[in-house]
Amino acid sequence: MKEQKTIGIGFIGFGTVGQGVWKHLNAQRETLEARLGVKISFPRIAVKNINRKRDVVVPAGVLTDDPMSVVNDPAVTIVCELMGGTEEAKDYTLAALKLGKVVVTANKALIYKSGRELFDAVSKFGGHYYFEASVAGAIPIIKTLREGLVANRFASIAGIINGTCNYILSRMEAEGKSYEEILEDAKSLGYVEQDDSLDLDGWDAFHKAVILAFLAHGKWVSEDDALVEGIRQVTLEDMHRARDFGYRIKLIGMIRRDFKTGAMSVGVYPALIPLDKTLARVDGVYNAIKLSGDVAGTTILIGRGAGRDATSSAVISDIVDAMIGIRDNAHKFLTKQDLEACKRLGESARMATMDEICSKFYLRISVVDEPGILVGVYNVFAQNNVSIARVITYEHPGERRGTVTMATYPTSEAIMEKVTAELEALPQVRTKPLLLRIYESTRE
Amino acid sequence: MKEQKTIGIGFIGFGTVGQGVWKHLNAQRETLEARLGVKISFPRIAVKNINRKRDVVVPAGVLTDDPMSVVNDPAVTIVCELMGGTEEAKDYTLAALKLGKVVVTANKALIYKSGRELFDAVSKFGGHYYFEASVAGAIPIIKTLREGLVANRFASIAGIINGTCNYILSRMEAEGKSYEEILEDAKSLGYVEQDDSLDLDGWDAFHKAVILAFLAHGKWVSEDDALVEGIRQVTLEDMHRARDFGYRIKLIGMIRRDFKTGAMSVGVYPALIPLDKTLARVDGVYNAIKLSGDVAGTTILIGRGAGRDATSSAVISDIVDAMIGIRDNAHKFLTKQDLEACKRLGESARMATMDEICSKFYLRISVVDEPGILVGVYNVFAQNNVSIARVITYEHPGERRGTVTMATYPTSEAIMEKVTAELEALPQVRTKPLLLRIYESTRE
Repeated sequence: MKEQKTIGIGFIGFGTVGQGVWKHLNAQRETLEARLGVKISFPRIAVKNINRKRDVVVPAGVLTDDPMSVVNDPAVTIVCELMGGTEEAKDYTLAALKLGKVVVTANKALIYKSGRELFDAVSKFGGHYYFEASVAGAIPIIKTLREGLVANRFASIAGIINGTCNYILSRMEAEGKSYEEILEDAKSLGYVEQDDSLDLDGWDAFHKAVILAFLAHGKWVSEDDALVEGIRQVTLEDMHRARDFGYRIKLIGMIRRDFKTGAMSVGVYPALIPLDKTLARVDGVYNAIKLSGDVAGTTILIGRGAGRDATSSAVISDIVDAMIGIRDNAHKFLTKQDLEACKRLGESARMATMDEICSKFYLRISVVDEPGILVGVYNVFAQNNVSIARVITYEHPGERRGTVTMATYPTSEAIMEKVTAELEALPQVRTKPLLLRIYESTRE
Repeated sequence: MKEQKTIGIGFIGFGTVGQGVWKHLNAQRETLEARLGVKISFPRIAVKNINRKRDVVVPAGVLTDDPMSVVNDPAVTIVCELMGGTEEAKDYTLAALKLGKVVVTANKALIYKSGRELFDAVSKFGGHYYFEASVAGAIPIIKTLREGLVANRFASIAGIINGTCNYILSRMEAEGKSYEEILEDAKSLGYVEQDDSLDLDGWDAFHKAVILAFLAHGKWVSEDDALVEGIRQVTLEDMHRARDFGYRIKLIGMIRRDFKTGAMSVGVYPALIPLDKTLARVDGVYNAIKLSGDVAGTTILIGRGAGRDATSSAVISDIVDAMIGIRDNAHKFLTKQDLEACKRLGESARMATMDEICSKFYLRISVVDEPGILVGVYNVFAQNNVSIARVITYEHPGERRGTVTMATYPTSEAIMEKVTAELEALPQVRTKPLLLRIYESTRE
């Protein structure tokens, strides 16, 4: 029988998620202590304002307004960084890792921005960094990627990983309301990050995709190497046309890797997903990730992507893993050895060129309403050797303009960039055409 | 830097799955060795016939026809029991556990039959037993249940966990063919276990449900305490009527626990699932499991439920976990402590009575074609206080009989047992009515 250790869990940031973690951990404390054979304590919690009224009641004396005192408290072995942000949070995380402590977080923005530096600190100082909650809320995607499906290499990972965008798109379609109208509502419900560009322009999803891409392929992808588009341009009309063509529009994060050529790509964009696919049916704040593995085939995980409890569930899962690691003096997650192996894996990867990234595309082209317009439009496609699969053209009664929507056969990003530029240059085309990707998995 | 250990993996049984594991592990050997910091060897493989031609070529001298020599080989630390069956397989497993070795398996029938004895051996002799592959193929359900969603208690776990039945039901519906016709096809494709009752009568799904129920609630459920029904009674007509009512029919394993009363239930049966639910859309050999957790909310996992590669993926995941456990001399999965905690958890559980297990029900009642028949039928429901939600009654032209299909409001198993008995006793009712359950989750 091993000696029973006491493991102290400290919090930096004690908002919605922090309180959720505290509450649920406390509720299950006895069960967990029995199962793990350790004692759990909560020695110190750093908050902005000690006197603020909170939903959970913590013992007197554990609250502090000095986050560094949580890091430095010898009784704290696991630091839950749940304050958010990328500046101070980084300092505290680094300080804790340098002391060889465990940091558990949901802070995807910080990992995206400073992940390499933080991982270097893990390798150098022997601390540990757990971040299951940073991607897809309650879905245990990082554990599944690294452990459950460890036998696999992933040619593609596609996910609905921003609940806010999924909520907005789902409601637009269900209620026939405009983007602006639903966005207003989502904001009033607190579903949108304060910096709304994080959600609406795809950056939050991109941060998550970068984390998954690193874990799957060992390569850090920067925004210069990726296609990141948000949902602001998507209209109700596009949703109706997508449905006419047999699709629904979702914001997806897409990670592809060609193991023959070494080419990989990471993108976040609104995509048309075939109606009969599971991803097309994941609505509201739910997240979903589809993994195409070379051994397991297709695996799909669906779950709550955000919110106090969903995030708490993932944070607690990390805390339990960390407690086992501390108990046994042997952490499983992202050790120095893992990080080195991961880097080596990344050496065989290179970013795909725009010629290599292929898919079907959807276009919405706004044209003036004159005879012969369509000939000019179709010519651009013909000259670029792009086949058109479906077209719906419609007029706008009372206005001298029409809209052409179409779905193409597979072609490359490079060619479609040329096509849209040439279309835009046509005198009959009124504005830059909207270009969306059509997601069709090849393995199902 | 820890000393680099060599970990020997032995096989008992080297059929489809064994060869798949060997092949994929070999393909990834270097990557895994780098990542884990261990050396992997395959010292010994027990087969029935050494001279049989195989898809994979193994080094000379490792094949043996004596399984016990794999168990006893000092170079073998991990024994993959992939022979199947519940007699010999048990002997080898016990022998390996008694030597403190790790056994990895997909053998759900053995775990169902002898799990308690095998777990006792784990507690007593310090060996380890890993069985991710025993439930839902490539889906990492055991890891998700025990680790990824460790923060949760599960009021319900519902799963499509028998790929063969799902394949048969999916094809019946898609092609409008009879059960017998598709079954024949499934058999010729090798999709049905030799003892076809395992698949078709729900026993295979039940074994898996029992494993999940134990891991989630600490209680071993025997077949006397469970409702186990297969798919033999389900006709195309039922599928059409189900669709008219807004459902599809799937064979599901259902584990419910009421944390207030301590009542739990385990059942396997064909159930009507609302058309708009994800589970209703999982077709073919795919498996899916929906977990309703008190912290994470609903999480759904979908993936390949059987086949060489899907099972290999899960077996390799266990092997990797076991290798880390051996490397660090600290296994995470189902330690003595876990097993004790699990048992304690089970102490607060009791099997629900038939009065406590409630759902909506679907009935198909075959009646003679005479005036006044329906009055008698409806009277039975009225007298038992069961409300009827929907009815479709139809004649069979040329025959003097009709069929009444209906969906009820929620009521208990006990009451429905009484209702069906009373219906059967009516002179106008020709045979015992078919009774199916309607699955509707309460949390979404």
